[in-house]
Amino acid sequence: MSSTVSTSTPASQVTSVTVDLGDRSYPIHIGPGQLAGANISQYVQGKKALIVTNTSIAPLYLPALKDQLQDKHIDTVILEDGEQYKNLDNLNHIYSQLLQSHHDRKTTLIALGGGVVGDMTGFAAASYQRGVPFIQVPTTLLAQVDSSVGGKTAVNHSLGKNMIGAFYQPQAVIIDTDSLATLPDREFCAGMAEVIKYGLIADAEFFHWLEDNLSALLERDSAALAYGIERSCINKAEIVSADETEQGVRAILNLDHTYGHRNETFQGYTDWLHGEAVAAGMVMAAQLSVAAGDMSAEELQRTETLIEACGLPTRPPADMTSEDFLQLMVRDKKVLDGQLRLVLLKGIGHGFVGADFDMNLLQQILADACSD
Amino acid sequence: MSSTVSTSTPASQVTSVTVDLGDRSYPIHIGPGQLAGANISQYVQGKKALIVTNTSIAPLYLPALKDQLQDKHIDTVILEDGEQYKNLDNLNHIYSQLLQSHHDRKTTLIALGGGVVGDMTGFAAASYQRGVPFIQVPTTLLAQVDSSVGGKTAVNHSLGKNMIGAFYQPQAVIIDTDSLATLPDREFCAGMAEVIKYGLIADAEFFHWLEDNLSALLERDSAALAYGIERSCINKAEIVSADETEQGVRAILNLDHTYGHRNETFQGYTDWLHGEAVAAGMVMAAQLSVAAGDMSAEELQRTETLIEACGLPTRPPADMTSEDFLQLMVRDKKVLDGQLRLVLLKGIGHGFVGADFDMNLLQQILADACSD
Repeated sequence: MSSTVSTSTPASQVTSVTVDLGDRSYPIHIGPGQLAGANISQYVQGKKALIVTNTSIAPLYLPALKDQLQDKHIDTVILEDGEQYKNLDNLNHIYSQLLQSHHDRKTTLIALGGGVVGDMTGFAAASYQRGVPFIQVPTTLLAQVDSSVGGKTAVNHSLGKNMIGAFYQPQAVIIDTDSLATLPDREFCAGMAEVIKYGLIADAEFFHWLEDNLSALLERDSAALAYGIERSCINKAEIVSADETEQGVRAILNLDHTYGHRNETFQGYTDWLHGEAVAAGMVMAAQLSVAAGDMSAEELQRTETLIEACGLPTRPPADMTSEDFLQLMVRDKKVLDGQLRLVLLKGIGHGFVGADFDMNLLQQILADACSD
Repeated sequence: MSSTVSTSTPASQVTSVTVDLGDRSYPIHIGPGQLAGANISQYVQGKKALIVTNTSIAPLYLPALKDQLQDKHIDTVILEDGEQYKNLDNLNHIYSQLLQSHHDRKTTLIALGGGVVGDMTGFAAASYQRGVPFIQVPTTLLAQVDSSVGGKTAVNHSLGKNMIGAFYQPQAVIIDTDSLATLPDREFCAGMAEVIKYGLIADAEFFHWLEDNLSALLERDSAALAYGIERSCINKAEIVSADETEQGVRAILNLDHTYGHRNETFQGYTDWLHGEAVAAGMVMAAQLSVAAGDMSAEELQRTETLIEACGLPTRPPADMTSEDFLQLMVRDKKVLDGQLRLVLLKGIGHGFVGADFDMNLLQQILADACSD
């Protein structure tokens, strides 16, 4: 893979990445102008579709998307905006709308929004009448580089994030880089955490590129964004293609979740953005890896520097204790048969899943990182 | 296939039918003494399992099942007994129990009960942490010959039956014919409707065998039951293997649902048992087939006679009009892109899906069958 942006690519050009999963393979189209001009309609097989979006995104992009689909009967569900609405109640609201409007098994669901909308719509599609097609139109950086790619769909339970869901692949992912223009800074930076994650766990060259090009990305330079998103998607697509249902290698994608979800669960999903929790989790993974002798202190420093430069947190929430952290860890789905599986690093670019981490060492590092 | 019971088979012998679905294939073990003696534990891969059952079944069979699983950590969920409890609220109750008891992705769910328990447990397994293994231990005739085989899992929505679910295959189905001894007559007869269905849509020889052996079945003769269940499972397994996700031939299994679910939905799921609705639906399918010239009046008569002999209804609920019926039909998942798909018969033993049935004729027959 090239480590530089191809500057010869005109801004209007759309690049495509394929997620290779046999008869469930699908394309990711990345570029500007996708919502205004591209033909999303080609991925709607039947005569009807339901667009699921939220109150923040609907005024910005729903009219353009509906304009593209004038040859179809379109219904919409507009959810409240926020992780706290990613639950069974709102999922049921989607089912009700589908049933009230007589959507049958040939309907298509379209997720227009961030990760919450994408995860919920995907699971609604996976479970409505035992499965109908769906399309991802992610409008946040986080959703573009992470949650819209790979077929993980879910809603939260009050006892844990993403505990209810399915592996279910979309027909296509349409990424309009223009939609990042309206994304609030805090959400953009949270998305950067996931971009950095790909460098950290799987692509050392890309990590270097991020260090060199961070200011262009933070200024939302169009070419830099397109390249950063494409390379993130390529990394994720490669890992997902190798392990669709996370039996093995895909688990390294959960570097963030091993640690980050703890931060969010502790906060009841409301105070931190997912990417912010991921950022603090990456630093913790690096600290554990240094303690285990798998990573140099200099690489930990580079990781912290890159994360800090994005304005992201590098420590758990101030009032969280190591005891809180461990309690939440054992409840998580990364625990297999009672054994805690941690995603760790053999240096930048090389994530792995370890199951035999020294518990005393873990508690000591958690105590250092947390407020106790 | 043989059309007679193998009388040389000792009562204690267990027969097995394989549902052939590649790497998702699984065995159905049929015979007496399964709950008391067989080794269900071999299908529990991890150290933990959650048994889901209901208040009627738990006192009868839960102790025996738990006795078999003493080498595992077992938790239980005991639901209220009834179709009205097959909903998202009770599904959430299963998720909560799993999370509270720290069940991870290697847990196994075990459905002990009828179709409601099986459908809900299967969907809970399909969606808990994006999918965990499960085992079906059906204790009603209906569940043994129908809902436990084929991987259809679901819960109801207030606007329609089985509208939320997944195709998800169990590790194994364990059918203890002894459990039918405690089944109330009304439920046993409702199960007979599904047994008759296999003869009607796919197996004329079996239909003949049912006509000849009905009294033995109604007396719950052990050998007759084992053969009737085995042949029902073989028929269903063949159809499911050919079309796991109901893209084509599997749709003929919905003969009953095309009509029967209307009866149930109209009643709000409470007044009629599923099998009773199926019975009335089969007669309606036969009436339509006769009207379309695809079936003889004599075959319709034989169908009605067999159904009546089981004490099952042959007409829709008394207060249901043809307008009620049509309204509910268009809401159903058997409607594809606005076109009503009816399961019809080219004589006994030959179901097919027709999409071009004359609407005037349909309305006329519905009016004759219903109370208007």
